[in-house]
Amino acid sequence: MSYLDRIRACNKRDMSRYRPFTVGGVHVGYVRTDAVKLLAPYAETFEVSERAVALNSNFGDFESRTAAIDQVLREINKLGVMSGWRDEPYAVTAAFGAPALFIMERAAVPLFGVRAYGVHMNGYVRKNGKYFMWIGRRSRHKQTYPSMLDNMVAGGLPYGLTAQECLIKECDEEAAIPKSLAARAMAVSAVTYCAETPEGLRPDVQYCFDLEFPSYFQPMPRDGEIETFTLMPIDEVAAIVRETDQFKFNCNLVIIDFLVRHGLIGPDDPDYVAIVQGLHQ
Amino acid sequence: MSYLDRIRACNKRDMSRYRPFTVGGVHVGYVRTDAVKLLAPYAETFEVSERAVALNSNFGDFESRTAAIDQVLREINKLGVMSGWRDEPYAVTAAFGAPALFIMERAAVPLFGVRAYGVHMNGYVRKNGKYFMWIGRRSRHKQTYPSMLDNMVAGGLPYGLTAQECLIKECDEEAAIPKSLAARAMAVSAVTYCAETPEGLRPDVQYCFDLEFPSYFQPMPRDGEIETFTLMPIDEVAAIVRETDQFKFNCNLVIIDFLVRHGLIGPDDPDYVAIVQGLHQ
Repeated sequence: MSYLDRIRACNKRDMSRYRPFTVGGVHVGYVRTDAVKLLAPYAETFEVSERAVALNSNFGDFESRTAAIDQVLREINKLGVMSGWRDEPYAVTAAFGAPALFIMERAAVPLFGVRAYGVHMNGYVRKNGKYFMWIGRRSRHKQTYPSMLDNMVAGGLPYGLTAQECLIKECDEEAAIPKSLAARAMAVSAVTYCAETPEGLRPDVQYCFDLEFPSYFQPMPRDGEIETFTLMPIDEVAAIVRETDQFKFNCNLVIIDFLVRHGLIGPDDPDYVAIVQGLHQ
Repeated sequence: MSYLDRIRACNKRDMSRYRPFTVGGVHVGYVRTDAVKLLAPYAETFEVSERAVALNSNFGDFESRTAAIDQVLREINKLGVMSGWRDEPYAVTAAFGAPALFIMERAAVPLFGVRAYGVHMNGYVRKNGKYFMWIGRRSRHKQTYPSMLDNMVAGGLPYGLTAQECLIKECDEEAAIPKSLAARAMAVSAVTYCAETPEGLRPDVQYCFDLEFPSYFQPMPRDGEIETFTLMPIDEVAAIVRETDQFKFNCNLVIIDFLVRHGLIGPDDPDYVAIVQGLHQ
């Protein structure tokens, strides 16, 4: 395996298995063929054709779209086909920064292949010029990717919060990082990819933050999302990324981006340009 | 103007004006229609058709290709259609990291629309948490982009040097930066673009380096490429990038990449994702 293989894995998909999902004539996502069958019975809400899935145009505004979709999702969730129900509102927009067309339960986002936004933070320590990175292990009870390795702090960007606000909130909830410290996290990049996951298509944007910690700081699991935190030498982290499947798929990209920005992967790597381009495709 | 406009400017091109340039069956560049006419008389070297320009397959190895192309270029140069002659050898490869197919005078690279590689360095100073950036003004006598603003140090990557070696050499030649200091420059990114310039098509890769300088350091023009160096507050640099055409086209991308990596352009910018993706297209 190589860094490039990790990037490829986050962009592997068979689009012939998806139908475009449109709302008010705007293409906002992709529904996988097997999920289309789940929506078909709700003909008053979803107009399912051979070529696309469209929200019924009767639902013409934010409130009615949100309510109509929510109702169907609660029914579908009873079938156990979603990865749980998180009660996290996701804003679906026509384009980044555009007004929300409607709000959708986060767990349903991949089912509709809607672009989702999240925040991921590289927490690191420098000792004698060497980098160490705080790595979290996800709870064995997580609905998604249980027990896998994760960035120190990460989370989906809910409706109404900026990326920075969301990160500060997640820092507190996941790792008991005080606000005064979390506020120093610096937005440094965004990784983008379009992955086919068991839940559905994920054409995601993950905003990346870096935060250098003092060596005495010890993160603490708080909300149970992360079970343990370990400070690892960066070479060890890089080897895990390169050679194993231990990290949740998209965390690999966030770490590779860190390695590039901190000169730990350099132009002498024959894959350098492909890596840099691949992180932002 | 916006940051995104700068990125778009570096990727504006009309490909209908170009014919693929192939060597040994490998597609290595694009020749603009008007340049095709310059090559047509050299039928022993270049096979010009309606659809492509191919190096005559009689030239089957590195040495013979290099010699044959060099001979034609020296003739063409007499017509004054190239931006001078720099005596800088450029290695043309089938793909990054692949063995060189042949070597070509640097000034001819855009004429053949061959992917070229270069190094650009952001030299910066931090005072009281504020960033300042060393900006060069190109010599009024430069063959290309005279008197325009430039990164502190930049140059094309010649055959046989690594990016880091090339940067250290350019640091010495352009700004009298001692090797001990230059060696601390960190490879942090690569910007990629495909620009149509007066010289031809430039599908370039520029390796980006950051180097933080102590506040007492003063760069000195040495080889005459740069006339003056000015330490500017980063806000001023950002405004020049955004609102003027003072920087040489590709330097804008290197600076925008710096602004992203140092949190000076953040996710709250509605163009953030498009900027990050656009720098690496």
